[in-house]
Amino acid sequence: MITSPSNNRIKEARKLQRRRERYAQGQMLIEGVRLVRDAWQTGAALRHVFYAPEVLEAESALAELLDLLAAAGIELVPCSMSVFATLSETVTPQGIAAVAGLPRLHVPSPRTLTLLLDQVRDPGNAGTLLRSAAAAGVDLVVFGPETVDPFNEKVLRAGMGAHFRTPIRICEQWDEVLAWVDIHQPLYLAEAAGVVSYDEVDWSVAATLVVGGEASGASAWVRRQAVAITIPMQGETESLNAAVAGSVILFEAARQRRLLRKSVRHVGGALTG
Amino acid sequence: MITSPSNNRIKEARKLQRRRERYAQGQMLIEGVRLVRDAWQTGAALRHVFYAPEVLEAESALAELLDLLAAAGIELVPCSMSVFATLSETVTPQGIAAVAGLPRLHVPSPRTLTLLLDQVRDPGNAGTLLRSAAAAGVDLVVFGPETVDPFNEKVLRAGMGAHFRTPIRICEQWDEVLAWVDIHQPLYLAEAAGVVSYDEVDWSVAATLVVGGEASGASAWVRRQAVAITIPMQGETESLNAAVAGSVILFEAARQRRLLRKSVRHVGGALTG
Repeated sequence: MITSPSNNRIKEARKLQRRRERYAQGQMLIEGVRLVRDAWQTGAALRHVFYAPEVLEAESALAELLDLLAAAGIELVPCSMSVFATLSETVTPQGIAAVAGLPRLHVPSPRTLTLLLDQVRDPGNAGTLLRSAAAAGVDLVVFGPETVDPFNEKVLRAGMGAHFRTPIRICEQWDEVLAWVDIHQPLYLAEAAGVVSYDEVDWSVAATLVVGGEASGASAWVRRQAVAITIPMQGETESLNAAVAGSVILFEAARQRRLLRKSVRHVGGALTG
Repeated sequence: MITSPSNNRIKEARKLQRRRERYAQGQMLIEGVRLVRDAWQTGAALRHVFYAPEVLEAESALAELLDLLAAAGIELVPCSMSVFATLSETVTPQGIAAVAGLPRLHVPSPRTLTLLLDQVRDPGNAGTLLRSAAAAGVDLVVFGPETVDPFNEKVLRAGMGAHFRTPIRICEQWDEVLAWVDIHQPLYLAEAAGVVSYDEVDWSVAATLVVGGEASGASAWVRRQAVAITIPMQGETESLNAAVAGSVILFEAARQRRLLRKSVRHVGGALTG
């Protein structure tokens, strides 16, 4: 049982709260029952798991998860609540955290829908967009230059496990972005001042949607290349939350694709019936 | 120039950070250039405005707003940055805060779209939903029992001025909710486990959408009365962020209504053409 916050393994784990250290080690720190379970279920490499026995009795979900992990041969490291709290940024920690390899999921080919985050600095917005992207069937989320790190603790928390379900690529330079965003496909920028309504776009063809930061907007490169699309708004409202705007557009794309699949099935049925 | 944090007016203003005090006084504390400007432009009663002269030079938007307020005869109270910071919950305050009357906007009749927040406790989600509701043309947002207070500082910040554009009613009991939610109209609950897809609902008729809390879900009353509608999701994703789910549905309603208005105009044009 670790009772000292200066224990070596605790110190090493705490280092992963810094972006640079995550990439140097290829590892991250994930916290909470849900994230650790998602990581384990999707086959992410869990190095070891810290837990606070003090929380065990109150949390049956925690006990169940620890049983699963122990059965899978993953090393469980008990630590006192005060030591555990030094790993956690939440007010009421759930008593479980893990050191896990950074996920690098396979990117499908061909891709039909790509999301590019361009200067999205708010970790809650970035994580929420990732969560929506996973649900809307996005094939790849590109974190562009000057965007928050996807493996930041707050992005992980808002992502609710999407990090383990949707491929992510991080591009610190624009030439790296071009390796992942096909500029021969339509490129759309969500923008309050856009002229084309988001529901008039044909989302049945492969495309990339760009969401810019709430404060800074999108980069000059994107503003030159992309078609600005807007969500029509009532009254005096100037703009939407960036995560909401991106999500509304992604689910319109998903809706159009669902309708198309239905009509294809319907035609197919008629032809063979 | 106020330089003591125990100055009476500062102490009175700080009291408004508590919910009970807001309702006892019928006033709230709003902070930041955007919120104060929105309040003033929409005719909210501004009692007096605190500002930090130290911020003035760096912030031309602040200087412009102070000129407008001074010209309108609103009392401007300068205070030192350290005193101002005691009014503010933001890390880098914009140097302006105001004591304003609680807005109580007229509720249109008949209403076509009502949003009910049911046990939404996260202030960021509640404020974001209000911002989306204003943009999607919702006529009334009802804050139901066990929902965060709409005039909480964080809800105000996430609302980005929607508090001054969309009528809000707060109901601490379910019988009060019934005064604002017409149960003869369709009542829909956004729920991941719902059976009806949100885009198969006919949003051209008057209806109420209920969004429950992320942790607790909706209350038993709503679960009995409402039709559960869902946003189809890909892969293993279990749910969406509550503000995102509510917003996606509200903008689907707005989209259907926009299409309907267009087709009515089109038919009208054909008949008279």
